[in-house]
Amino acid sequence: MAGTMFKLVVILAEPEIADRIVDDVKRLGARGYSRYEGYSEWRRGRGPDDAPGPHDFAGPHARIETVVRSEVAQAILDHLAVTYFEHYAVFAYLADATIARRDRYV
Amino acid sequence: MAGTMFKLVVILAEPEIADRIVDDVKRLGARGYSRYEGYSEWRRGRGPDDAPGPHDFAGPHARIETVVRSEVAQAILDHLAVTYFEHYAVFAYLADATIARRDRYV
Amino acid sequence: MAGTMFKLVVILAEPEIADRIVDDVKRLGARGYSRYEGYSEWRRGRGPDDAPGPHDFAGPHARIETVVRSEVAQAILDHLAVTYFEHYAVFAYLADATIARRDRYV
Repeated sequence: MAGTMFKLVVILAEPEIADRIVDDVKRLGARGYSRYEGYSEWRRGRGPDDAPGPHDFAGPHARIETVVRSEVAQAILDHLAVTYFEHYAVFAYLADATIARRDRYV
Repeated sequence: MAGTMFKLVVILAEPEIADRIVDDVKRLGARGYSRYEGYSEWRRGRGPDDAPGPHDFAGPHARIETVVRSEVAQAILDHLAVTYFEHYAVFAYLADATIARRDRYV
Repeated sequence: MAGTMFKLVVILAEPEIADRIVDDVKRLGARGYSRYEGYSEWRRGRGPDDAPGPHDFAGPHARIETVVRSEVAQAILDHLAVTYFEHYAVFAYLADATIARRDRYV
């Protein structure tokens, strides 16, 4: 395939921290991002009875996506974890993505 | 990468069965899901002339996503196939996803 | 997993060319697509100072997704690159996707 391997980073976050996360993503090296609105529910209660915990979430969320080099993806995840995971509802995952590079064609 | 391999399950479904599918996804083991609204068209007519069939679809859809362990992903796909594929417009796919686990950081 | 490997193609494009891209995607072999609305920013300035260039973009975009065979995915990317990359804000990437095939179940 004509393309280069990158990482897709998908971040679901409660709306009040979405703008901060966009700023973080740009500052950590992303050349772009996209943003969508959705609804989500998740629970993170852990313990003997898997009881609902303080990090459970149900409501509208911002979905922020960016496609970046692997090091940038890891830096974003580390930053999110250290900065937000304790006190905010933030969920993030990575997937492999092959991008169509403009400079391969024009 | 600091993360654990999971499966992203993406389900596109006609809106009237979206709530049922969310219930299915939670009952089958997902700890969370997210939901978006979109528009889609697809055709599944098969035969010598690839004629449009009864499962063709064009209209608004609900997009339901969840990130789960591989066994849960397979259980969700099997359930969708057996329960909905015959009579409803439902499309689903899986992709690998590496999640940022809160318990790795805090 | 009960499924077949396909390619997910994700295209982010400025809204005015979204309908054309949907037509392209269908003509190039996709049996379906889905479409969402979002907001995005990206910059593609390149040069010694990485200065903002004419292809920078900030605003609403259409997100067009399709899951297709690998050859169709490559044909779509090649077509997008040749047709739009020079004059429009279009970003595209591929990821592996395993689909739940109806004909495996019914």
